[in-house]
Amino acid sequence: MSAMPFELHREEPRGAGERAHPGNDVLGARAYLSAVAEPPAPALTGFVAQEGAVRTAERVRAGDVPPEVCEEVQARREHVSGQRCLERAEALGVRLLVPEHPEWPREMFSCFSDATAIGMPGLAEPLALWVRGKCALDELLHHSVAIVGARAASGYGEHLASEWGHALSSAGFTVVSGAAYGIDGAAHRGALAAQRPTVAITACGIDRDYPAGHSRLLAGIAERGLVISEHAPGVPPRKHRFLVRNRLIAGAGLGTVVVEAGARSGAANTAHTADRLGRPVMAVPGPVTAASSVGCHEMIRAGTAILVCSPDQVREAIAPFGQAPPVEAETPSRATDGLGPEARRVHDAMAPGVASGAEELARDSGMSLGKVRAVLPGLELAGFVTRQEGGWVRL
Amino acid sequence: MSAMPFELHREEPRGAGERAHPGNDVLGARAYLSAVAEPPAPALTGFVAQEGAVRTAERVRAGDVPPEVCEEVQARREHVSGQRCLERAEALGVRLLVPEHPEWPREMFSCFSDATAIGMPGLAEPLALWVRGKCALDELLHHSVAIVGARAASGYGEHLASEWGHALSSAGFTVVSGAAYGIDGAAHRGALAAQRPTVAITACGIDRDYPAGHSRLLAGIAERGLVISEHAPGVPPRKHRFLVRNRLIAGAGLGTVVVEAGARSGAANTAHTADRLGRPVMAVPGPVTAASSVGCHEMIRAGTAILVCSPDQVREAIAPFGQAPPVEAETPSRATDGLGPEARRVHDAMAPGVASGAEELARDSGMSLGKVRAVLPGLELAGFVTRQEGGWVRL
Repeated sequence: MSAMPFELHREEPRGAGERAHPGNDVLGARAYLSAVAEPPAPALTGFVAQEGAVRTAERVRAGDVPPEVCEEVQARREHVSGQRCLERAEALGVRLLVPEHPEWPREMFSCFSDATAIGMPGLAEPLALWVRGKCALDELLHHSVAIVGARAASGYGEHLASEWGHALSSAGFTVVSGAAYGIDGAAHRGALAAQRPTVAITACGIDRDYPAGHSRLLAGIAERGLVISEHAPGVPPRKHRFLVRNRLIAGAGLGTVVVEAGARSGAANTAHTADRLGRPVMAVPGPVTAASSVGCHEMIRAGTAILVCSPDQVREAIAPFGQAPPVEAETPSRATDGLGPEARRVHDAMAPGVASGAEELARDSGMSLGKVRAVLPGLELAGFVTRQEGGWVRL
Repeated sequence: MSAMPFELHREEPRGAGERAHPGNDVLGARAYLSAVAEPPAPALTGFVAQEGAVRTAERVRAGDVPPEVCEEVQARREHVSGQRCLERAEALGVRLLVPEHPEWPREMFSCFSDATAIGMPGLAEPLALWVRGKCALDELLHHSVAIVGARAASGYGEHLASEWGHALSSAGFTVVSGAAYGIDGAAHRGALAAQRPTVAITACGIDRDYPAGHSRLLAGIAERGLVISEHAPGVPPRKHRFLVRNRLIAGAGLGTVVVEAGARSGAANTAHTADRLGRPVMAVPGPVTAASSVGCHEMIRAGTAILVCSPDQVREAIAPFGQAPPVEAETPSRATDGLGPEARRVHDAMAPGVASGAEELARDSGMSLGKVRAVLPGLELAGFVTRQEGGWVRL
């Protein structure tokens, strides 16, 4: 772990095994709750906050819940088993991470309860997360950035996603994305190429490799970082699950970078969600002739996203106030930069190799003779001009 | 003149000859004043506003002016002749346009006196303009847009400058630029290809073709539109004259579009000036990997320029309030767009060609059975699903 930015609470990631785990009753209850309701389940989530996970699970099973909770759990309450989910997960080497666990990214995820509290029920906190991988999620998300974008990415977009994924990982940020084709995959690969952990959040059961063509990538991510999902094993990918999943990507990054996005894309949805969660949204511009950048440009125009041109600009946007790394100005400099406007005007008026008198320079530059005479010695001292027979010569 | 936007005061451009001209004394005085001081000449310009052109010219010649005016005219007052400038101009087919002339773009140029009044002397109004071409300047600038950019433009930038120059000209806007290599030239060419007048504002004497490689382009612009300069015949191009000239380009357009600009470029200077003159500044994004777009991205990040992706977005930005042409949304539509979120979720839960019962769909979507049953008939009516033996099938 080199070049960690800002302060870190702990120096080494701790394995999940070194921690106090919540009891099996809590795990069983959360496994059941995560399977019984289709996320987001704001009523159920709110009820759990009141009653606790164990008691809520009992009441859901018994059919003893308020109508709005009942609406969310009714279809599955007799058909799912938390125990079966946990057994299946164990067989797959998957663990269940619950809010009662110290590894739960409490601070990072507080955006979800804040959002539901102000009337955005679609942004409810997940009831639990199914996790492949050994890293501690809270530590990975301590400095994190979501990099998302179109599946139908261009070569330009994939190149940037991979480069920036590499650069931001090397700078100590965990890259969070959705493991999709295109930008997502390139961002994860850039992070892995930097030999850094990365977090993939999927939209289906944790046992499913989706997309299938990314099985090896997902295995690589789980090996070095984490693959996580709020869906119990067995849940198939569905369109609406991607949109719902996007809130977790947005909430898991200190900011969200959209590398490429078409006019209507999941990435634009993630960006919009990050904005609603109060996280900075950044978009990378591209050629206006490329359909794959239309969504990015629209976000910048609408003021939803700020334009970013480099990983340094991303770091600047997501760093806590006062901790932004200094970004060097890229303005090229010229030899005459140190000259004042009048000296520069006299310098401009001289042709190289041609001797001119001060009066001639005054006429050409339109400056008074006094001012021309006043700046010439300085120009000579700085090595820009020299005095010869016949007048002043530019060097 | 097809497809003129908004209202126009007159239907046909009038030749300069049909107008009342200021007297020869005024022309002679303005010719002298335009040659005697290096622009911008805020003190002289202010003095002319008080005393009138003829009396100011007499007093300058006599050395009877306040010290700040003297500073601006001292070097040349005995060396230039208005009459000689006018004779030379006449021989070249160049006319002198002065603020006393009805063709002077009074309204458009009021930004200069506004700027000097609030303490920006560098943005003084020109004392006169030397003009090649027959069109009436005020009419050309009635609907105008400045398109500027780097000389070291990319193929992408030149392509856009030419396309947008063509499109905005065809939409009735006069393209104003600086006739430089790269973006400027491409913008003028696009306008000429649309068989529309365009205005080039140069940074040297009106008798000089600069850059030399654009002699034919300048001739073509003068033939169909106008080439103008505030510099009397004979004045050579100098670095600082380009910066000073840029204020005229910025002031001559209802808005300024920067197509490409390096980290440090004249185009960025023009954009900054347009901003100070209170005119909208627009910048076109490009690949973040291209040095030629660095300046554009910086302007957008700094909030100096708004990002524009198309000529329509330019028109929207510069149109008077309430007169912006409607810009069509480019969001592609899908067949399921008309469905509510619940109907779409049920639709998502169905696999094509596989029959599912309502209970199964409820479990899969996590929605209550009642809701699933409520949306299915609507989906059937809209032709998305059909009822078969064994359940519902997605079409």
